[in-house]
Amino acid sequence: MIRVGIVGATGYTAVELLKILLRHPEIVVTVITSRDPNEPHLSEVHPSLREMLNLNFTQLDIPSFCEAVDVAFCCLPHAASAAIVGQLVDAGVRVVDFSADYRLNDVETFEKWYGVEHPDSDRVGNVAYGIPELFRAEIKSADVVANPGCFPSSALLPLAPLIKAGLIQAAPIIVDSKTGISGAGRKTNLKFHYPECNESISAYGIGTHRHMPEIDQIIKRFCDADIQTVFTPHLTPMDRGILSTIYVQPKNKTDVDDVLDCWANFYEDEIFVRVSADLVATKNVSGTNFCDMTARDCRGTIVIVSALDNLIKGASGAAVQNFNVMHDFNDSLGML
Amino acid sequence: MIRVGIVGATGYTAVELLKILLRHPEIVVTVITSRDPNEPHLSEVHPSLREMLNLNFTQLDIPSFCEAVDVAFCCLPHAASAAIVGQLVDAGVRVVDFSADYRLNDVETFEKWYGVEHPDSDRVGNVAYGIPELFRAEIKSADVVANPGCFPSSALLPLAPLIKAGLIQAAPIIVDSKTGISGAGRKTNLKFHYPECNESISAYGIGTHRHMPEIDQIIKRFCDADIQTVFTPHLTPMDRGILSTIYVQPKNKTDVDDVLDCWANFYEDEIFVRVSADLVATKNVSGTNFCDMTARDCRGTIVIVSALDNLIKGASGAAVQNFNVMHDFNDSLGML
Amino acid sequence: MIRVGIVGATGYTAVELLKILLRHPEIVVTVITSRDPNEPHLSEVHPSLREMLNLNFTQLDIPSFCEAVDVAFCCLPHAASAAIVGQLVDAGVRVVDFSADYRLNDVETFEKWYGVEHPDSDRVGNVAYGIPELFRAEIKSADVVANPGCFPSSALLPLAPLIKAGLIQAAPIIVDSKTGISGAGRKTNLKFHYPECNESISAYGIGTHRHMPEIDQIIKRFCDADIQTVFTPHLTPMDRGILSTIYVQPKNKTDVDDVLDCWANFYEDEIFVRVSADLVATKNVSGTNFCDMTARDCRGTIVIVSALDNLIKGASGAAVQNFNVMHDFNDSLGML
Amino acid sequence: MIRVGIVGATGYTAVELLKILLRHPEIVVTVITSRDPNEPHLSEVHPSLREMLNLNFTQLDIPSFCEAVDVAFCCLPHAASAAIVGQLVDAGVRVVDFSADYRLNDVETFEKWYGVEHPDSDRVGNVAYGIPELFRAEIKSADVVANPGCFPSSALLPLAPLIKAGLIQAAPIIVDSKTGISGAGRKTNLKFHYPECNESISAYGIGTHRHMPEIDQIIKRFCDADIQTVFTPHLTPMDRGILSTIYVQPKNKTDVDDVLDCWANFYEDEIFVRVSADLVATKNVSGTNFCDMTARDCRGTIVIVSALDNLIKGASGAAVQNFNVMHDFNDSLGML
Repeated sequence: MIRVGIVGATGYTAVELLKILLRHPEIVVTVITSRDPNEPHLSEVHPSLREMLNLNFTQLDIPSFCEAVDVAFCCLPHAASAAIVGQLVDAGVRVVDFSADYRLNDVETFEKWYGVEHPDSDRVGNVAYGIPELFRAEIKSADVVANPGCFPSSALLPLAPLIKAGLIQAAPIIVDSKTGISGAGRKTNLKFHYPECNESISAYGIGTHRHMPEIDQIIKRFCDADIQTVFTPHLTPMDRGILSTIYVQPKNKTDVDDVLDCWANFYEDEIFVRVSADLVATKNVSGTNFCDMTARDCRGTIVIVSALDNLIKGASGAAVQNFNVMHDFNDSLGML
Repeated sequence: MIRVGIVGATGYTAVELLKILLRHPEIVVTVITSRDPNEPHLSEVHPSLREMLNLNFTQLDIPSFCEAVDVAFCCLPHAASAAIVGQLVDAGVRVVDFSADYRLNDVETFEKWYGVEHPDSDRVGNVAYGIPELFRAEIKSADVVANPGCFPSSALLPLAPLIKAGLIQAAPIIVDSKTGISGAGRKTNLKFHYPECNESISAYGIGTHRHMPEIDQIIKRFCDADIQTVFTPHLTPMDRGILSTIYVQPKNKTDVDDVLDCWANFYEDEIFVRVSADLVATKNVSGTNFCDMTARDCRGTIVIVSALDNLIKGASGAAVQNFNVMHDFNDSLGML
Repeated sequence: MIRVGIVGATGYTAVELLKILLRHPEIVVTVITSRDPNEPHLSEVHPSLREMLNLNFTQLDIPSFCEAVDVAFCCLPHAASAAIVGQLVDAGVRVVDFSADYRLNDVETFEKWYGVEHPDSDRVGNVAYGIPELFRAEIKSADVVANPGCFPSSALLPLAPLIKAGLIQAAPIIVDSKTGISGAGRKTNLKFHYPECNESISAYGIGTHRHMPEIDQIIKRFCDADIQTVFTPHLTPMDRGILSTIYVQPKNKTDVDDVLDCWANFYEDEIFVRVSADLVATKNVSGTNFCDMTARDCRGTIVIVSALDNLIKGASGAAVQNFNVMHDFNDSLGML
Repeated sequence: MIRVGIVGATGYTAVELLKILLRHPEIVVTVITSRDPNEPHLSEVHPSLREMLNLNFTQLDIPSFCEAVDVAFCCLPHAASAAIVGQLVDAGVRVVDFSADYRLNDVETFEKWYGVEHPDSDRVGNVAYGIPELFRAEIKSADVVANPGCFPSSALLPLAPLIKAGLIQAAPIIVDSKTGISGAGRKTNLKFHYPECNESISAYGIGTHRHMPEIDQIIKRFCDADIQTVFTPHLTPMDRGILSTIYVQPKNKTDVDDVLDCWANFYEDEIFVRVSADLVATKNVSGTNFCDMTARDCRGTIVIVSALDNLIKGASGAAVQNFNVMHDFNDSLGML
């Protein structure tokens, strides 16, 4: 059994992560940390896990944490995460990091978009980006995997194969994404107060969302153009799910069948990508690690629609999939 | 008092229409029709209107209907509507028609997109399109007003002034719209069964939605280019509201301030369009006849976001606003 | 025109109140207060009211407030409210108070259940309880009206006539109430964070909710027994609405028809109570000042179901109805 | 591997059942039937299961079905089910029946409440009632298990131990239940059309719901009194979950601690019942086979609150738990 610890285990990604880990046949969860000095029991913070795991939250003590675990899932906010991850790795613990700290290629872009100094800047640019369908080899041998952003996953899984195959133009790419409210995390905020966001849909972060440069940089690895995605996220009145509607221009005479074929070939051996000619819906992937995708033609524009669960394939499921790849397990071990 | 009848008054637009009409100081509702031979009382079909109006549904008898009303709101499905509207107009009744039958300029386009023969084809192309903010003069003197589609209203109100002023390019225009489920009407269908569409967002009708040519034809009146909007509607788990996120390319050096200024001038005297630098949300217009709109820049693309209530500004509120214009009342009479 | 001010106008009841007041033909809103020293404009706090009222929030200054208004609606929290209300009344301003401060008959019960010293204890017990259907005469001449709690309104409107007519036993009375989340107010709290309460129903405050003694004391005015209602509120994943399912035992041979007849007679002249043999639903009263009620027999127990909108008939609509009664207007002026 | 077939596999319980079965290490699904002569592929009917199971729907042919399976899960409507179940059992197939056909003790009660002749009346009264926590021994050896109703499960799990221990009175028992809309099944009906039931809560079936006699008969097995539960179900705007708020009278000096202790002892070895002093919520059990329960005192009445997922512990999870008991597996095999 591989001993696993979760750093910062009080949020929504952590509870979904724990549900998967508790079912995983090769994992034992040995430590969960929070900053709360009262060291509450798991079931106080996550009542859905009552009687599932007999563990108290403890405050992070790096030496004892590193003795107790082989692998860490780090669910801290950006900057806070990199301040810890470096120490864990240096102590020989492999890490899947949920934060944005290691997703970007260069410190400049990170500091521009996140507005803080990077606490572990040397490692930036040398960390595997955790979409196994795209970067399997790097992940397999990685010390640290940067678990991808939920929106980028929904955009990159359909876009990367098409860009790589030269079927679509690198610009313009418009990504219109809709997310359930859990994507905003568990910290209270008037915006996410039930009567504010129920029965309402709204756009936010237009032109300023930090997942935009992440999409750009990863797409760039599949072509030699500079990409400037136009990305608009929307808050949708539902718990979970991301639907991304992506507008791209075909190259040459690419049609929808070419797109579907390209995906079918690229993802032939990938269990968690489901290519379909049918329209997709977030409900069909809710609670699962699947990313469903389809495409349609609208007057010469190719309209791609992808759906995933922001907490699973967009966070905790992807993290366990990365863990599985890091340990040469089947991607789906513990997840179907 | 102006005597008003509603043809086909059993759906969601009709109940919202009735709520407005009952509050309107110059209107008395004298007839409501349905195809149900049992002639149910209003409160059986619309329990929210219990004790509000002492009227039974009757089956439409055109001669007696035309004697009992001065103005008709016709809420029938397409094709069924035009089969009636012509007769009402010929009998001297002014009509606000909720169907799509008179929205398009030409019979060919109608028959191509709606797949039926037009039952009143001579009138097509000579009917006022019912967005008072854009076509006030025509509406004022009209016998028949074609109440606009809910999605087209959300797209045309922001786009028309910008196109007319030459601030944006006529192509490409991408309209990514999100609607509450009431937009699908009251007829049961597995797609709109609560457990199918709750907690889910999905795209539908990509490249095939009938509101697309409607948007094209109306925009064309404001420029001399042929327009081919790329339009994608989405089903959103909420009762009501449309949010349209519209991606356009500026002409010359148009920036977001130019866009906001253009709207502010164009809609200076219009009570029901609210231009704002703040982001908009469907909740802020729910139950009202307002259309809120804003714009942002994202890497040179202008991202417009508009919000309206599909049942009010997208249907019944617009209809009463048209009625008010037809009778030289203030647009907002009975609606604030 | 009657000049009206709102004290503490930043919450959900205030925005609904403003929507009604802006439509009321005899009212002009002259002051709205908040504790925010930045004096934000109305549309910053309530974007749904953008361009509806050109007024900034000001901080409460009692002398200038009292000069500017004839009537105050006070939407402060308990205890904070009574500290202000007394001063307003002493300055000649009539008040409709949304807080619980004057609803109970005696200071002891208030201080026991609310856990604070009452700041205006002399007035307690001499304030009209603001359900016009039950206490019209007192309200008409009142300086201060205690606007009732939302749950008590849903319980008292059906129960009072039955108790008074001796049709049901005074004990046991079980009130199982379900409320939309707006009932919890606008202050953020993890419990009302969207992903916590969406897709979930839960009971809370069992045996400890402060609306329980309020129900008891008001029922007691209609009989001579001491009442101990068993009251359980539930959080329901919707914005607004209260459904109360009330279990009572008939006296003698009271059957459901007797109950419906009793209500029909008692509320014959009341526009806002709708008695029906059909089952009721919160949707049918949403956005209105109606209370719908019905009854069924289940094995000798009479099961009453009442529905109202917690923000309207349960708060702001009732307040304006009280205002109308205080000024000899029709109850429904500005509200249909 | 045990070969399993599902009869009538197009509804919501079937899709949840399939999700569990696909994860179960001792089960292979060999047949799924529907009445659709087109024999659609699984993913057309249940797009969430795309690529999960390569199986087409077939129409039920009893001989070939019985050759292909060891155990059948029968998800047909009442009466339709018993017409099949008898034949399956006679052919040596063990059955877990989701319908109500074998839940009641006697044919008279069945025919009175269901209004149809029972097609397999001889077996009635000799079938195990499928709550393993209460009837483990009978289930273990059963040919047919009557999977319990979702509401009865939520009432019986808390009530049975208390009745058996003599801690509470057998009358009155009031069960006020709230269910998500999936409880109504997948057949379209205006009542369950999204815009009709979203943002609304309502009671239904008061005094007439068929789960009422089911609760009565099972409780009676734990005492010698005739029980007449007062049961009121409510439609709640959420996909899934049942919360039952149950009002009972203590015997002697039973207090809440006695209740919690009684449950803790009774369910000491049961993994799927979680007793807690904390308040429960349907969200905490969503997607799981847990039933959470707690109790509070309100003025001498004991208020019990239980929560379960109507599709899992209220249907498909219970069915697999019964399957596990029938095969001497751990209750939780394939379900945690």
